[in-house]
Amino acid sequence: VIDLATLEDRAAETLHPHALDYYRGGSGDESALADNVAAWTALRLRPHVLRDVSSVSTATTVLATPVRAPVLVAPTAYHLLAHPDGESGTARGAAEAGSVMVLSTFTTQPVEDVARAGDGAPLWFQLYVNKDRGWTAELVARVRAAGCTALVLTVDLPVLGLRLRDERNGFALPPGLARVHVPPASAYDDDLGASPGSALRAHVNRDVDASMTEDVIGWLADVGGLPVVVKGVLRGDDAVRCVEAGAAALVVSNHGGRQLDGAVATARALPEVVDAVDGRVEVYVDGGVRGGSDVVRALALGARAVLVGRPVVYGLAAGGWAGVRDVLDAYAEDTARALALCGAASVDDVTADLLAREP
Amino acid sequence: VIDLATLEDRAAETLHPHALDYYRGGSGDESALADNVAAWTALRLRPHVLRDVSSVSTATTVLATPVRAPVLVAPTAYHLLAHPDGESGTARGAAEAGSVMVLSTFTTQPVEDVARAGDGAPLWFQLYVNKDRGWTAELVARVRAAGCTALVLTVDLPVLGLRLRDERNGFALPPGLARVHVPPASAYDDDLGASPGSALRAHVNRDVDASMTEDVIGWLADVGGLPVVVKGVLRGDDAVRCVEAGAAALVVSNHGGRQLDGAVATARALPEVVDAVDGRVEVYVDGGVRGGSDVVRALALGARAVLVGRPVVYGLAAGGWAGVRDVLDAYAEDTARALALCGAASVDDVTADLLAREP
Amino acid sequence: VIDLATLEDRAAETLHPHALDYYRGGSGDESALADNVAAWTALRLRPHVLRDVSSVSTATTVLATPVRAPVLVAPTAYHLLAHPDGESGTARGAAEAGSVMVLSTFTTQPVEDVARAGDGAPLWFQLYVNKDRGWTAELVARVRAAGCTALVLTVDLPVLGLRLRDERNGFALPPGLARVHVPPASAYDDDLGASPGSALRAHVNRDVDASMTEDVIGWLADVGGLPVVVKGVLRGDDAVRCVEAGAAALVVSNHGGRQLDGAVATARALPEVVDAVDGRVEVYVDGGVRGGSDVVRALALGARAVLVGRPVVYGLAAGGWAGVRDVLDAYAEDTARALALCGAASVDDVTADLLAREP
Amino acid sequence: VIDLATLEDRAAETLHPHALDYYRGGSGDESALADNVAAWTALRLRPHVLRDVSSVSTATTVLATPVRAPVLVAPTAYHLLAHPDGESGTARGAAEAGSVMVLSTFTTQPVEDVARAGDGAPLWFQLYVNKDRGWTAELVARVRAAGCTALVLTVDLPVLGLRLRDERNGFALPPGLARVHVPPASAYDDDLGASPGSALRAHVNRDVDASMTEDVIGWLADVGGLPVVVKGVLRGDDAVRCVEAGAAALVVSNHGGRQLDGAVATARALPEVVDAVDGRVEVYVDGGVRGGSDVVRALALGARAVLVGRPVVYGLAAGGWAGVRDVLDAYAEDTARALALCGAASVDDVTADLLAREP
Repeated sequence: VIDLATLEDRAAETLHPHALDYYRGGSGDESALADNVAAWTALRLRPHVLRDVSSVSTATTVLATPVRAPVLVAPTAYHLLAHPDGESGTARGAAEAGSVMVLSTFTTQPVEDVARAGDGAPLWFQLYVNKDRGWTAELVARVRAAGCTALVLTVDLPVLGLRLRDERNGFALPPGLARVHVPPASAYDDDLGASPGSALRAHVNRDVDASMTEDVIGWLADVGGLPVVVKGVLRGDDAVRCVEAGAAALVVSNHGGRQLDGAVATARALPEVVDAVDGRVEVYVDGGVRGGSDVVRALALGARAVLVGRPVVYGLAAGGWAGVRDVLDAYAEDTARALALCGAASVDDVTADLLAREP
Repeated sequence: VIDLATLEDRAAETLHPHALDYYRGGSGDESALADNVAAWTALRLRPHVLRDVSSVSTATTVLATPVRAPVLVAPTAYHLLAHPDGESGTARGAAEAGSVMVLSTFTTQPVEDVARAGDGAPLWFQLYVNKDRGWTAELVARVRAAGCTALVLTVDLPVLGLRLRDERNGFALPPGLARVHVPPASAYDDDLGASPGSALRAHVNRDVDASMTEDVIGWLADVGGLPVVVKGVLRGDDAVRCVEAGAAALVVSNHGGRQLDGAVATARALPEVVDAVDGRVEVYVDGGVRGGSDVVRALALGARAVLVGRPVVYGLAAGGWAGVRDVLDAYAEDTARALALCGAASVDDVTADLLAREP
Repeated sequence: VIDLATLEDRAAETLHPHALDYYRGGSGDESALADNVAAWTALRLRPHVLRDVSSVSTATTVLATPVRAPVLVAPTAYHLLAHPDGESGTARGAAEAGSVMVLSTFTTQPVEDVARAGDGAPLWFQLYVNKDRGWTAELVARVRAAGCTALVLTVDLPVLGLRLRDERNGFALPPGLARVHVPPASAYDDDLGASPGSALRAHVNRDVDASMTEDVIGWLADVGGLPVVVKGVLRGDDAVRCVEAGAAALVVSNHGGRQLDGAVATARALPEVVDAVDGRVEVYVDGGVRGGSDVVRALALGARAVLVGRPVVYGLAAGGWAGVRDVLDAYAEDTARALALCGAASVDDVTADLLAREP
Repeated sequence: VIDLATLEDRAAETLHPHALDYYRGGSGDESALADNVAAWTALRLRPHVLRDVSSVSTATTVLATPVRAPVLVAPTAYHLLAHPDGESGTARGAAEAGSVMVLSTFTTQPVEDVARAGDGAPLWFQLYVNKDRGWTAELVARVRAAGCTALVLTVDLPVLGLRLRDERNGFALPPGLARVHVPPASAYDDDLGASPGSALRAHVNRDVDASMTEDVIGWLADVGGLPVVVKGVLRGDDAVRCVEAGAAALVVSNHGGRQLDGAVATARALPEVVDAVDGRVEVYVDGGVRGGSDVVRALALGARAVLVGRPVVYGLAAGGWAGVRDVLDAYAEDTARALALCGAASVDDVTADLLAREP
């Protein structure tokens, strides 16, 4: 049993303090970061007993892709900063755990290498749309050619949130690491300590297309020929707009509390998105999911699956590709345990009334 | 006056750190453990004054068995780990305090010895149903022959909750101690430190029948010829299922916050169970009951009695059989005090409106 | 300006640790003690502006007795334990501040001496009704002869609350101090350290009449010929019973969080009592009133006045009779300030809508 | 990027401890101070995504005066205590940031000098109405002649709140500093340590007109010939009174938690004031606004702009006039960021439904 509760502590022993701050921090007062966790905890579970749970399955599908458990790998940046195995290690770990990895645009290893490490396991690609649409289309073609089967379009980052830890640290990639899938001029341009504040913020605000509207979804589906998952939706009306514009699925997310300071917790936003979508597309959720009971809570609120980011990075930092596998296995195992203790033999047995009304 | 508030501190002086962790810990983030206590505290009391409370009686009955106070001994495991008096000491202490002891399947002393120590006092037997139903039936026959007058069927443990303290400690019984009422192969098989993680978890997940449904209640009543109290119910619909399947009483319990991570506090679940049962059977409650005012709160919500687990173990650890008696006497005395200060001369005078509406 | 916020700190420098624990402590988990303060704080004020508050009066009357401010001295025990000035010092301080002192049955100086120190200032007497009604009647006659003009009947102490600090300390009066108005056998019988636990608890449980009902109010009015203020009411139905039995006024009180463990905060109970009484008698309140804004909150909820206990004792400990005067002056001054800042030129200008609805 | 979160820490390095306490402290239990911040944080944001925010403008107007962002400089006293640049520094910083400075009556530099430092930037004057109306009229004429274009009438200070830090410190202006716009007798009369308690409190309570009602608004508009902004309103009914008496705008304020102990948080009071005013005048708000997300929250609740006090003083302390500019620029930049991340290209795009309903 991997101990998710002490995972951050173990990762902290190996990560550079600036890298640790980069991964664990949030924006502004970090209330969204804390509230993400607290909102799941506040949802208390009303388990069923005396149901046959001698055989519990956590298996499900996401966009028709089978996964061993409804726990996917959220896109996170710079895996070589966490461990020499890099994104390839994460891909291998995810593959061995029967999960889906979402590879970040800010990968430090080429998508082809990462796909090869996954050895045929499902790989999705998270996309920041660059102001240069031509360049973006080329990137999309490349990741498709590499074997990615879905695009995860991040929509909550027209500008970078103010992450004070990074600003104070002057956070930047160390020499030798690069964002390998951004235009060349951006790849190596934030040498550690070169300028005050966060180099990432300067980079994002220069390159990311802040003008895009829901029309980008159709454009991306057309140029990419892949299903487009829209990540970063926190409202029912926005969810409807995305679905009508062609989204294949949605991720209710506040970017792990790293973007809008004061954003609503995802556990609070999820029900209205599920309600608005009304079953037309799958809805996933991320942010503060720290164990199997949180997975069950998310399912009870109508999510199809969750994504986990920081714990996967911590697993990578602590143990390379095997650490990633162990973390994902621990989530699956803890989800099975929570299902069993809720009297649910499968994810289909999870119903909304497993959650108590709040006092 | 025994000081329940410092009882854990006193026990901590005598218990092995791993044993202390085993008793005091909960599962997952331990929010259910904390919430159990907080939920009682949040229920504020509206006492009556100027009523004749010159003579206060805490006496009541459970399953027609008279008890000095509505405070029973919850089943807890491994009493020899706490004190050389073991379960026999607990039985003697409970007998002297006029309470009912519920003996755990995971007793470290034979039921016959424990019953003898109780010297005719009421003894109930907590049952984990083993995958081997024949073996289970034999155990039930044995405990009945030993004088147990009710079976307390635990239904919230199809698998073991993830108790991180025990996992970290590699918790297991020390050499010389055994679960004397489990199949021989399981009795001595978790030598301290033999394997990583909790030996108890491995054991439970191998032996306990996770397939049982409410049908087990009738089967057990038939083979045992004893009333079956179902322990671990947190929902009204489950309560109705149990009653219709033949339960003689219910215990609203989340296993002391040790099973489902995030389970609703028992004080929150109690009202819906009482409401659903509608007087057909007695309803008890456990979890976080830390004094007489909590007992009165439970009665005001419709419970017939409470069970206390950890405090009894701490009393045993601190003072052997006499410590158990002192703890139960302290609960009875504090219940009498709370009744008097609520203007109630007996448990029948406790009404729902003693509780304030929450703001 | 006396600094009420640091008053306890200053008193702590002079009081014996056991005495300090006796004064500052509460019963059980001390949640009622903490909740009393928190409940006032939670009531946020919606002040009026642009009203003429160039002249603010805090003057009012209680039972037709004029007081400089709606802040009375709550009955508290053993003033010689706090300072050599004893209850006489408190009486003098209260007199100089234009307040009313309520003298405790557990005074350490004779009522006649205390009345003399007050020099004609209004003095009320708090009464615990002894099992010996004849003795009680004699005491009432004596305090009336000494000049007391009202009886404050405490009804929330049929038995003593479990005050764990005192139990742990074996709290008792030191040699030389006595409860001078209890039957002789009780006066000197709790030598420090003579027995485990609280001597006060043993004493109270032996002597106080736990059988009394609302009939005692009429009896007391008859034998005493004085208005009877009933202290310790927390419910509307009890309030009505008391009024119909002849109470001249009520004090909403949970005995400073020292009696029923888990009792509702007085700020929460006050509205229902005010509502039930419907103007027939005056309603006072005590518990956690720590400044002028709390006084205004109490008035806004319908109280006629508040009583303060611990701060007066701390003032006595820190500065003798002058310390008591300073504390009461500080309350009056802070009440004037709060009134002015609420746009109220007098207590009559305080309306219920000064309080915000809670979110 | 200036780091608003650590601004107070940096200011603390340069300010005299008494000055720091004066600026950071609140009245009474400081619950209003803490609640101001907490109330904004509790309002969680529901951002829109996929809107064109490639060009975000924070520009707006206040009383038809264009400002670069809806963030004004709240009136605060004694800027020479914070930095040798004094109020002139603040004026220059505000001017460079495109904001409006509200100069306090308790300025330590003459209004003419301050206006000159602002070099034509909009300057408003905060007014305490002195008991001497003739003197007040002269002051108003003077500030108008100096170029002030609005009067900000403070109405929540008929008497000074009890600021315990200042009382304990015996806070007073050091030799050489004076309130240059109060009657001569008051300017220099609080030498440090000359008397116990706060010299400011003595001064205010002697000079400020506590008798004024809403009639003062019309009088002030007449004698001043300037729009009158009423600052310190926390209720809808008072807001209506002020509007009907001629107020040009209102500031929902509890004086930064420095006046009425226990006053409602401004974020809680704002909606009822906005509702009552119903668009007839502009409504501003101050208190606990600590970043761009708070600005957006205020706009979503119907405020036209916010005022910030302490952060500006801290910026002045840490960096003189440039520090003020940096702080205001940081607010503007963070507001732009929050707007972008909410999918709002301008302040007009902020709607009430950006705020989540509280659970």
